[in-house]
Amino acid sequence: MKIDEAIGKLKELQARQVAYNQAMSMLSFDGSTSAPKNSFECRGRTLSFLSGEVYKSFINKETDDLLNYLLENKDSLDQITFRIAEEGREEFDKISRIPMQEFMEFMQLQNDANHVWETAKLSNDFASFEPYLAKIVDFKKRFANYRDPQKKPYNVFLDDFEKGYSMDDYDAFFSVLKENIVPLIHEAVPRGKSINDGFMKISYPVDKQRLLSKKLVSIMRLDPDSFAMAESEHPFTMGINKKDVRFTTHYYENNLASAFYSTIHEGGHALYELNTADELIYTGLDSGASLGMHESQSRFYENMIGRSREFTSYIHPHIRGLFPSQFADVTADAFYRAVNKPEATLVRVEADELTYSLHVMIRYEIERMLFNGDINVAALPGTWNEKYREYLGVTPPDDSTGVLQDVHWSEGMFGYFPTYALGSAIAAQLAASMGKAFDYKSDVSQGDLSRVNAWMTDKVHRHGQLLKPKEIMEFACGEPFNPRYYCGYLISKYSE
Amino acid sequence: MKIDEAIGKLKELQARQVAYNQAMSMLSFDGSTSAPKNSFECRGRTLSFLSGEVYKSFINKETDDLLNYLLENKDSLDQITFRIAEEGREEFDKISRIPMQEFMEFMQLQNDANHVWETAKLSNDFASFEPYLAKIVDFKKRFANYRDPQKKPYNVFLDDFEKGYSMDDYDAFFSVLKENIVPLIHEAVPRGKSINDGFMKISYPVDKQRLLSKKLVSIMRLDPDSFAMAESEHPFTMGINKKDVRFTTHYYENNLASAFYSTIHEGGHALYELNTADELIYTGLDSGASLGMHESQSRFYENMIGRSREFTSYIHPHIRGLFPSQFADVTADAFYRAVNKPEATLVRVEADELTYSLHVMIRYEIERMLFNGDINVAALPGTWNEKYREYLGVTPPDDSTGVLQDVHWSEGMFGYFPTYALGSAIAAQLAASMGKAFDYKSDVSQGDLSRVNAWMTDKVHRHGQLLKPKEIMEFACGEPFNPRYYCGYLISKYSE
Repeated sequence: MKIDEAIGKLKELQARQVAYNQAMSMLSFDGSTSAPKNSFECRGRTLSFLSGEVYKSFINKETDDLLNYLLENKDSLDQITFRIAEEGREEFDKISRIPMQEFMEFMQLQNDANHVWETAKLSNDFASFEPYLAKIVDFKKRFANYRDPQKKPYNVFLDDFEKGYSMDDYDAFFSVLKENIVPLIHEAVPRGKSINDGFMKISYPVDKQRLLSKKLVSIMRLDPDSFAMAESEHPFTMGINKKDVRFTTHYYENNLASAFYSTIHEGGHALYELNTADELIYTGLDSGASLGMHESQSRFYENMIGRSREFTSYIHPHIRGLFPSQFADVTADAFYRAVNKPEATLVRVEADELTYSLHVMIRYEIERMLFNGDINVAALPGTWNEKYREYLGVTPPDDSTGVLQDVHWSEGMFGYFPTYALGSAIAAQLAASMGKAFDYKSDVSQGDLSRVNAWMTDKVHRHGQLLKPKEIMEFACGEPFNPRYYCGYLISKYSE
Repeated sequence: MKIDEAIGKLKELQARQVAYNQAMSMLSFDGSTSAPKNSFECRGRTLSFLSGEVYKSFINKETDDLLNYLLENKDSLDQITFRIAEEGREEFDKISRIPMQEFMEFMQLQNDANHVWETAKLSNDFASFEPYLAKIVDFKKRFANYRDPQKKPYNVFLDDFEKGYSMDDYDAFFSVLKENIVPLIHEAVPRGKSINDGFMKISYPVDKQRLLSKKLVSIMRLDPDSFAMAESEHPFTMGINKKDVRFTTHYYENNLASAFYSTIHEGGHALYELNTADELIYTGLDSGASLGMHESQSRFYENMIGRSREFTSYIHPHIRGLFPSQFADVTADAFYRAVNKPEATLVRVEADELTYSLHVMIRYEIERMLFNGDINVAALPGTWNEKYREYLGVTPPDDSTGVLQDVHWSEGMFGYFPTYALGSAIAAQLAASMGKAFDYKSDVSQGDLSRVNAWMTDKVHRHGQLLKPKEIMEFACGEPFNPRYYCGYLISKYSE
């Protein structure tokens, strides 16, 4: 084989993956946004079938040889081609140990379980979801064992979502957070009780909230020709490529903060995808460097921007314009304090910035117990409630606001949650570095995010998966990742 | 090969087609409803790629042999399997003569041309669309020639959309219509000038119109768990299967009739798909028997039901409830007259029942000229405007309301339009037959469509593609298709 021929074959392979990914992503997206309920059965069959097609066209000796040949000749490859081959090799090794039949069955199971979870959450019925979740856990354990029988299953998953991270790394990370944040919570939460946020939970008609979301994405400078918003039970972002990014939000009439911060959060994810470099389109490298890195962007925009004094002051008159009676007596300061009220609550996505990491830590500890064999699926609701009592002093009145609240497990995404806390910590470090480059808070107070976006694009977004997270941190901050920035940021904000 | 083995292989083939069709349909649906503008490029690549996959997996000697074997042993097949094989044979013969590369290129071209058409229509710019349309016409001519060099290309397309119909058949059909309808138009249109429909074109806020559409689909008894509505430039229905049917509508603030009748029209299409027999799901036979038959359902519900005195009287108080000021002085009779005002207008989808067939006839004649070589693509706007002057005495002020108004040509669907007129005529014959079975107008006056739907399901919907249109007409009406019912219906309605 000649190198040019091999590169040509790699490109063909890549084009296949791009096409199948787009088809499967759009089916899932439609399933979460517009599809009628009864559509789930056929969608499950189709997703399972397509995953089989992907498997067959990718997992074979030809691909194996091609990837080996390319990586053996890596000096002849440009950086993009090298990274495609490297990622391909990793993906191949991940999937090839799983038998195709099980791979397809799992795809179908994900679709079915997700459908059952949605109904179970609405009707507070963990029992109906339990057998599906048990099957998912079995599959995941088996998959982990196929892939690396030497490794603990949970470490396999942690590494999937954040390369190079194991339980040891997360234990160390969370222990720094615990040490710094728990005393702060004990101090701030009781003080927070005096903060009035009742006005955020009166009636805010949804059509007006939609207008506010539009205003937010326009401030964030999301290109309306390349992105679209939809609505779903659980907000998420899906990037097909930099010319086609979607995100969803969820409006609740009696909760202004929910869609407001979901929109900014998902908008942060969307900016990452939209601002990857042009030359990465159709390469499979046009997405975030890792989940933690991706989450750093959503949480940077949500918290460092969206929950800052500067931004809340800037947006306050716009909100008052849309909701003159609801905001008649609400000052900018009252709004700032309401959206930063530290509070021990039940639902992660509605949590304030300070207690957020504890919600994540609870999930991390439960997942670890589940895969280390300390508990089984049936014990999840009880364990969940205990942990909430232990860490936050609150007990969920039902499973809908307890163990059923998140979509992740229904899709088999164990090991995903800890990247949320990691992302928050990366965000704080990036913000500190940006602050050294220019006075971004002054831009934010004018509602002008052009320099903020440009800095993030240069330091993070444009690289897509061309650089590894560690390389990005060095490039953006001049030093490795360090959770102390996050602790410092929270201490300074909540000691105020 | 044993017969059981062959049937198993056919089922496998069918499952492939179902999966690919669903994926491609959802991509197209998303493209017409939610996708951001810049997404069209990648979607075109993906659709083209997937069409190549379908081609490869279907067009090969194995399929050819399989279909031959099955049809040679048709006595061993049940009715469903026989019809799958028969339809497969036809599809195979249609596609196999087209080289795969051109098949894929055409799929990409359709996507691109559709995108360009949308912009061209909005900006009244035929020139930008012309080169795409010219390419489409070239492809279609070439395809027709590959498939049957003995046959005139336009006859190939007419047969595609309504099996067994050629220019001779449509000439005969349209001459009956012309003979009966043109004199009626000459009489009714001048009389219609005195009918006031100005109140239909004042401001009707879109969110309220959406509620009205919801009311309509509930009256039509469309199962909300199996169908969903969306919005697009050009309303259409897409049936994945009986558990997943979508249709779109388009709201105009200053036109109450537009979305109102689009919704009922597309709802009629949707009912057909939703009410196909359970055993037809995943067989590829779970759709309409032909385009004309499908259109008979949309036009039956739109006109025989939706524009009847009984239905307009029934729905009138609901409209007044939603739009109390706009409908303050509008009686049920005034509403009935407004939505039945015969008028020589420019836009087919907004046309009244009487002049509608002339809009179709104009398109039929233009398509015939185009493919018989009498005119070229550049001459379309001029020819269009001449025909409108000749038949309806009106001249489009621009191409947006002229030659660019319909989506069909941008997708290469030549020969499709005449099925609209055919469908209207079938609808009238079905209505006459239903009227002999029970007094359906009395049901309609109560807003109760349960018996109407049940009759249509029994006579038409449930058979899907198991019966041919001719068999359905014999089963439903006890006689062959006869356009005199349609003429009689229009004469009786418009002589009133």
